Amino acid sequence: MRMSQLFTRTSKTIPADEQAKNAQLLIQAGFIHKEMAGVYAYLPLGKRVLDNIANIVREEMNAIGGQEVQMTTLQPKELWERTNRWDDKVVDNWFKTKLANGTELGVGLTHEEPIVDALSDFIDSYKDLPVRVYQIQSKFRNELRAKSGLLRGREFIMKDMYSLSRSQDEHDRVYEEIVEAYHRVYRRLGLGDDTYRTYADGGYFTERFSDEFQTLSDVGEDTIYVDETKKIAINEEILTDENLAKVGLTRDNLVQKRAVEVGNTFPLESKYTDALDVYYTDEKGEKQHIIMGCYGIGVSRLVGVIVEKFADEKGMVWPKNVAPYQVYLASVGRDESILEHAEVLYKALTDAGIEVLYDDRDVRAGEKFADADLMGIPYRVVVSGKTIASEQYEVKSRTDDQVQLLDQDSLMKMVART
Amino acid sequence: MRMSQLFTRTSKTIPADEQAKNAQLLIQAGFIHKEMAGVYAYLPLGKRVLDNIANIVREEMNAIGGQEVQMTTLQPKELWERTNRWDDKVVDNWFKTKLANGTELGVGLTHEEPIVDALSDFIDSYKDLPVRVYQIQSKFRNELRAKSGLLRGREFIMKDMYSLSRSQDEHDRVYEEIVEAYHRVYRRLGLGDDTYRTYADGGYFTERFSDEFQTLSDVGEDTIYVDETKKIAINEEILTDENLAKVGLTRDNLVQKRAVEVGNTFPLESKYTDALDVYYTDEKGEKQHIIMGCYGIGVSRLVGVIVEKFADEKGMVWPKNVAPYQVYLASVGRDESILEHAEVLYKALTDAGIEVLYDDRDVRAGEKFADADLMGIPYRVVVSGKTIASEQYEVKSRTDDQVQLLDQDSLMKMVART
Repeated sequence: MRMSQLFTRTSKTIPADEQAKNAQLLIQAGFIHKEMAGVYAYLPLGKRVLDNIANIVREEMNAIGGQEVQMTTLQPKELWERTNRWDDKVVDNWFKTKLANGTELGVGLTHEEPIVDALSDFIDSYKDLPVRVYQIQSKFRNELRAKSGLLRGREFIMKDMYSLSRSQDEHDRVYEEIVEAYHRVYRRLGLGDDTYRTYADGGYFTERFSDEFQTLSDVGEDTIYVDETKKIAINEEILTDENLAKVGLTRDNLVQKRAVEVGNTFPLESKYTDALDVYYTDEKGEKQHIIMGCYGIGVSRLVGVIVEKFADEKGMVWPKNVAPYQVYLASVGRDESILEHAEVLYKALTDAGIEVLYDDRDVRAGEKFADADLMGIPYRVVVSGKTIASEQYEVKSRTDDQVQLLDQDSLMKMVART
Repeated sequence: MRMSQLFTRTSKTIPADEQAKNAQLLIQAGFIHKEMAGVYAYLPLGKRVLDNIANIVREEMNAIGGQEVQMTTLQPKELWERTNRWDDKVVDNWFKTKLANGTELGVGLTHEEPIVDALSDFIDSYKDLPVRVYQIQSKFRNELRAKSGLLRGREFIMKDMYSLSRSQDEHDRVYEEIVEAYHRVYRRLGLGDDTYRTYADGGYFTERFSDEFQTLSDVGEDTIYVDETKKIAINEEILTDENLAKVGLTRDNLVQKRAVEVGNTFPLESKYTDALDVYYTDEKGEKQHIIMGCYGIGVSRLVGVIVEKFADEKGMVWPKNVAPYQVYLASVGRDESILEHAEVLYKALTDAGIEVLYDDRDVRAGEKFADADLMGIPYRVVVSGKTIASEQYEVKSRTDDQVQLLDQDSLMKMVART
């Protein structure tokens, strides 16, 4: 993409109505547009980041047999009444709306009920299970406060997976496979080392724990206690001696940390399947309960978490696999030969499948470099009179102050996504 | 994908609550699930069709300089009051909801206002124009009746593009480029020959016509008059002698047809940009109006249109570029060698990038063939004792009764997407 064609541009002004660093930087760099508190539109660069994260999540969900669906935002009241999750006194963050004839509808905040309802058409016998389905789509939650930018939205993008299994044992195996896939997702996003599987409350109907995936961050809303040797944590909310004994952690080995939840996995036993009257028939012809789990990853929240986690005083810093473009190519100087060389390199990189944001604008080098830093593109490549003379290119990593002179082959190897 | 792993399956029962052929067949084949009238979830096969159509649209929008964004579903009232499109007496198909504090919000039905508002941050001078942005996402319209399956939904997927230009001349050039892109989209979807650019009403504030893209179909809600030589049409709603003269059509050359609208392009002049107070400064430093256009393609409606258009008595018939899978691979017979050969072919095709639905179930050949036909997969490939003996594969096109025996190379050439 040529900067001269991109409709967004950066701004030097920090938006006055944003307190969160992630929203401030994403707005200044032209990645997102604030529609209202907790509701953000994705502009081209932000949309690319969002899609990159979504695609990593999608690949890992597909790899463990996840089948992608797209459920609806509009939700019929009757379905949610069957599980007692319609009443605003029970679920307090519904957005609700009405059909022209007055029929009340919900605006999708999660999808356990419609997923079980849709799957029930296809589940009779033990041969039809286990099943794992997922979707990546907008969810709507009527939060009282929304001040954390993309970390807590009223409208946000989520991956939600649901598993249905024949027994608690089978569920536990499926559940652990999904946990492993979650670890792979966070590693690929550059958050692996700082993201802990964290024991948390399982909800009122089960004595099991759920698992949260918590990324260490000073802006996190959660307090967790980390066992750095075992690479596991426990949420402060359930930190009791009894629970520590259950999960095999010792208070002395725990370190208190602030963290932000980037995913969760919930054992639901047969709460929803029973309530919606969905069972399967086993090998002996007997009716059996279906054991369910649900598994979330906050895709748009991760955009915000990555900004908070890696940003420095110059701006955002995107991990290679997430960045909207891998290379920020800047021509420095307006000599015809400089522009020609920059065009040739732009084409060569693009033809090799490398995503390049080419700053072809007639502005000072300092302005180009500041934009490259603010946008957080992993590599800045400069074509100037000097680089042409040396028959190499000047390359600087966003996280390194040193510039290197590289030929085209070495450059391509360096910038490729992992 | 192995059929034994796919969670959906086909049904022999026509759903009693569906009148539209598209919804009946898509539900029977397990492509979609009805949530309520006009609101459908996409199951794995339906999601693949939807994504295939969306990707063709995306490629063609990108090719003409479209920049992809993702606007929000939740909409602030104040923005729409500025264009007088908030009041239910003016726009009668809003879904509306409320924040916890009582503030009214809209549920996105179109995005002219938020697009102009977001772009206004980036438009000052003539250098910032023209711009073309688009998105592909769910829209919500509170329709009184919804009986046509995917042809008229309350929740549906749409591509909406918006252009902002410096002058009416520039707008007209951009507009015609987009019209050409639309023709390419419909050709790639297999609808090119039967889809007509159709003059239609431009709305109350302009004397210009809008253009509809109408696909001939007996289930269409529109009546159009086609000039088959000029390959252009006019909507019955504006069929007057005065209008015919304006567009250079002659009543005698027109044939009346039923058609369904699969896209539209609207000249908006400066209606929305003026109302939202967005202008640009020209080379002389003078403030100028911005000329806008909006351009829709009904992505989920196209799923329904393609079903209606091509289905036969055996089921759906997907064009190659749209089909959820290119090949339905069926093993016939349970001999070990048959299953081994089928596995080898499945792997070879998949490795070559061909999308295969492999029916590895232990069911009768007739049942497999009926499912292949109902699902409308373009090619059915059979591995049986007979095909192994001949060292070839039995291939049948969905639209042809003849089976052919082909070796692997010829098979691959035949089934590849165009």
